[in-house]
Amino acid sequence: MPAVPSLPGPFLPAASGPAASRTRCWWGWGYADAQPDDAACAALGALVPGTLARPLPLPRAADLPMARPRVSPPPTLAHLVTDDPQERAAHAMGKAYRDVMRALRGRPGRIPDLVARPADDRQVADLLDWAGEHGVAVIPFGGGSSVVGGVEYRGDAHRAVLSLDLTSMDRVLEVDTAGRAARIQAGALGPVLEAQLRPHGLTLRHFPQSFEFSTLGGWLATRAGGHYATGRTHIDDFVQSLRVVTPAGTSTSWRLPASGAGPSPDRLFLGSEGTLGVITEAWMRLQQRPGHRASASVAFTDFHRALDAVRALAQSDLAPANCRLLDPGEALLSGASPDGSSVLVLGFESATAPVDDRLAAALELTRAHGGRGAAPAAGGDAPADAAVHAWRSAFLRMPYLRDGLARMGAVVETFETAATWDRIPALIDAVRTEVGAAAAKATGHPATINCRLTHVYPDGAAPYFTVVAAGRPGDEVAVWDDLKAVANDVLHRHRATITHHHAVGRDHRPGYDRQRPEAFALALRAVKDALDPRHILNPGVLID
Amino acid sequence: MPAVPSLPGPFLPAASGPAASRTRCWWGWGYADAQPDDAACAALGALVPGTLARPLPLPRAADLPMARPRVSPPPTLAHLVTDDPQERAAHAMGKAYRDVMRALRGRPGRIPDLVARPADDRQVADLLDWAGEHGVAVIPFGGGSSVVGGVEYRGDAHRAVLSLDLTSMDRVLEVDTAGRAARIQAGALGPVLEAQLRPHGLTLRHFPQSFEFSTLGGWLATRAGGHYATGRTHIDDFVQSLRVVTPAGTSTSWRLPASGAGPSPDRLFLGSEGTLGVITEAWMRLQQRPGHRASASVAFTDFHRALDAVRALAQSDLAPANCRLLDPGEALLSGASPDGSSVLVLGFESATAPVDDRLAAALELTRAHGGRGAAPAAGGDAPADAAVHAWRSAFLRMPYLRDGLARMGAVVETFETAATWDRIPALIDAVRTEVGAAAAKATGHPATINCRLTHVYPDGAAPYFTVVAAGRPGDEVAVWDDLKAVANDVLHRHRATITHHHAVGRDHRPGYDRQRPEAFALALRAVKDALDPRHILNPGVLID
Repeated sequence: MPAVPSLPGPFLPAASGPAASRTRCWWGWGYADAQPDDAACAALGALVPGTLARPLPLPRAADLPMARPRVSPPPTLAHLVTDDPQERAAHAMGKAYRDVMRALRGRPGRIPDLVARPADDRQVADLLDWAGEHGVAVIPFGGGSSVVGGVEYRGDAHRAVLSLDLTSMDRVLEVDTAGRAARIQAGALGPVLEAQLRPHGLTLRHFPQSFEFSTLGGWLATRAGGHYATGRTHIDDFVQSLRVVTPAGTSTSWRLPASGAGPSPDRLFLGSEGTLGVITEAWMRLQQRPGHRASASVAFTDFHRALDAVRALAQSDLAPANCRLLDPGEALLSGASPDGSSVLVLGFESATAPVDDRLAAALELTRAHGGRGAAPAAGGDAPADAAVHAWRSAFLRMPYLRDGLARMGAVVETFETAATWDRIPALIDAVRTEVGAAAAKATGHPATINCRLTHVYPDGAAPYFTVVAAGRPGDEVAVWDDLKAVANDVLHRHRATITHHHAVGRDHRPGYDRQRPEAFALALRAVKDALDPRHILNPGVLID
Repeated sequence: MPAVPSLPGPFLPAASGPAASRTRCWWGWGYADAQPDDAACAALGALVPGTLARPLPLPRAADLPMARPRVSPPPTLAHLVTDDPQERAAHAMGKAYRDVMRALRGRPGRIPDLVARPADDRQVADLLDWAGEHGVAVIPFGGGSSVVGGVEYRGDAHRAVLSLDLTSMDRVLEVDTAGRAARIQAGALGPVLEAQLRPHGLTLRHFPQSFEFSTLGGWLATRAGGHYATGRTHIDDFVQSLRVVTPAGTSTSWRLPASGAGPSPDRLFLGSEGTLGVITEAWMRLQQRPGHRASASVAFTDFHRALDAVRALAQSDLAPANCRLLDPGEALLSGASPDGSSVLVLGFESATAPVDDRLAAALELTRAHGGRGAAPAAGGDAPADAAVHAWRSAFLRMPYLRDGLARMGAVVETFETAATWDRIPALIDAVRTEVGAAAAKATGHPATINCRLTHVYPDGAAPYFTVVAAGRPGDEVAVWDDLKAVANDVLHRHRATITHHHAVGRDHRPGYDRQRPEAFALALRAVKDALDPRHILNPGVLID
């Protein structure tokens, strides 16, 4: 299969101006001014055989089929609620490929009747009460970056739909400097909360790809995976306590460094994806800002030997903060390697001690598995190693490139999973083979399927796949849905989780339902009945 | 308050012979032949003013009030079930001070009608089915080392009581050497599972004080805290997947290194203390056996500066495996320091690299907080540092000493908690002051209240308290219950958890009920109704 060539060039305008002054793209990723223009889209499309001759036009919210709101808020809550069409359109879906494509094709999901922006817990509770009384579905909405159908309404069992946008609740309310923790409102976007922590010398250091466009509450509700490639990385492990407004009352757990008192209350709400309650704030464990860093990249001729090297690293005491293994296609696409090598991107950081020795030990370990190490790039904020830099830059650009390719009618999406080491090689091979065959059959063109390991553990790893294929004009979403069904079947046969950090939402329900123990499903339904007896919260996600 | 002097001497016979040939003590801790004899008890008692002149006699199971079993098992299950009085007595209670004292005074809790020892999941399920049909309460029982009333029946809402002893299910069923994991049956005692892992070069490295007398299933059901004093130490973090037999069906989660698919199924059962199902096996994450070790002790004149040193260590990258801070009384009692200093016991270990540099860095850090470091004792299995050795030895002897003092009518018990760093100093002071005053008032004698930090985190610590006081003859349990109520009140006011690793059981219910968010209580009751609709599993624990 041909790999998409490296994209070092002019496809994306540089970020311009401070975030607050920039306009978010309602139909696609990130900022509107960072989306590829028509010429850039056409150049991207030329790299993928079988795509359109010219880009699909930019969609306009005003063109969407939008019914009048079927409910009105009561006067006491009216100031929190809007029915502005642009707002409703921007809250209709998340940012998966299938969401972008539906917007481009003018066939979005059901558009919410209203958008509410509560400012405190009381207002959240009042909105839930009102919604419960009037049969209104409530979709909690943070940054709206879901790629699994987590923030849209499907079906027609509810009288109306309210998108509950938490981003007005974005303050860091308290900081415990000595104990390195802060109480943070759930609606704070990544940069918003980090800016408030910076004066205290502290950082959450949770940097998912969506960092700029997702919120603490969204990370908590979806068990997001973050910055650290080894050790603790899921947001779960950084939670000291949670505050959750449910239709049955507000749950506030104690701030504790650890506890053995019954099943963890927090762990029930972490990953509940807005179905059991609305997370409104959390005490989070923070880090000191790291002053010591070192990074390097290591090339491998043999991907399977690279897997062994990464496993050895994950089972050592070295604890790299970054330990991302790119397969040859991914290395090529990101500009990390042009020669068909796999590339391991390694980074170490510490607030308290130099890390050069750890990097040196890691490089020595990789050499024992055939790794060809570049010279380490020590100190400073910007890693000097070109491959590391190329990878980071591509990582942040990738969702915009996806949207540009979508405008050319291509099928471009990612999915991720995790499995134990014994299953990893066969799993990756099966995804390539089976999804590749399905794509060729569906589109008549070969597809590109790349893989990287985003997070590694002593007992397994999290592979992340990128699929780039031609579409069928007007039928792109159906093509992707078919490929995803094939992928999900591979994951299930290899006992690989339906999601390592993208969440379940609506798109992953079939895979989740097969994976989840039935006794746990019974338990989860019982909890849903107890906390959300009218079933207004994010209907269709996780449970029916 | 006077501290109990160091006990270096002949109070305990040395362990004799292999474990399999030794008799367990039915009424007290551990092995019968390791219990202090009458002379040793008297010598212990002489150290605590106000205790009895001679030890209470050893209790005999045959003297206990024991009704005939109120149910008989069906013929198909009869071979798994016994009504032998000695067995029933040994399964009547855990090993808390109040359990030991009730046995010594001939007033045990309700004795189970029957004891069952299933050999597989099918038999566990059949026993649950039978119990459900006949209104029989089922108390899952591992090593029986609960110190919170977790394995006894209270009340009379059930027709009969079955103690479900899992220790016949004690095999390591599969080992994944490359992925460092094993599938282990829940009834394996610590030494039993470690002996099966050793030939593979692997170890769970979960060494609670009860290690010899507690099981994997017990650790999982109670969220036990273990070997590591920093970082991941609760058994929760080492679980790859769980198998749980519930009255509503068996729950088996997938083996995964990590997952973001909904709330964690395993985390609902971890800490469920036998109320939602019977954990029958788990895939556990293992460690390579550490070949590199170094340990040392550090003395501090000022306990509060020692707290600062420990916090700095917990917030560094150094990750000591042992980082236990003993207050002056605890240091004296364990023989770690005779001069009124606080003592920090530090240990590092690694399977992959020398740890001497980490120990040296840790010692340097403690010196900045007034620590007086002894020379490090590097390498080898046995730490050369005398204070470290004294502490370890005392740690394992302590429960036997407690039983010896109990036979002298003393009140001797421990309790533990965890809180964020900002609360630790005032919390420890309040426990000393308030529990000390209550003990003096109740017994007319000053009490000894010692404290150590068993586990430390970047954001807080787990203090562990030992109380030694005179009793009131015949009324010892009531004295302890009163002191514990005072302690629990202090914990609640300081927002310190009712338990860091001893679990909730029945004894901690009042504190747990006040700590747990009410919305979570609603959820937990709903899960109980769904998975154990007849409410036969461990009634009274966690929920009613």
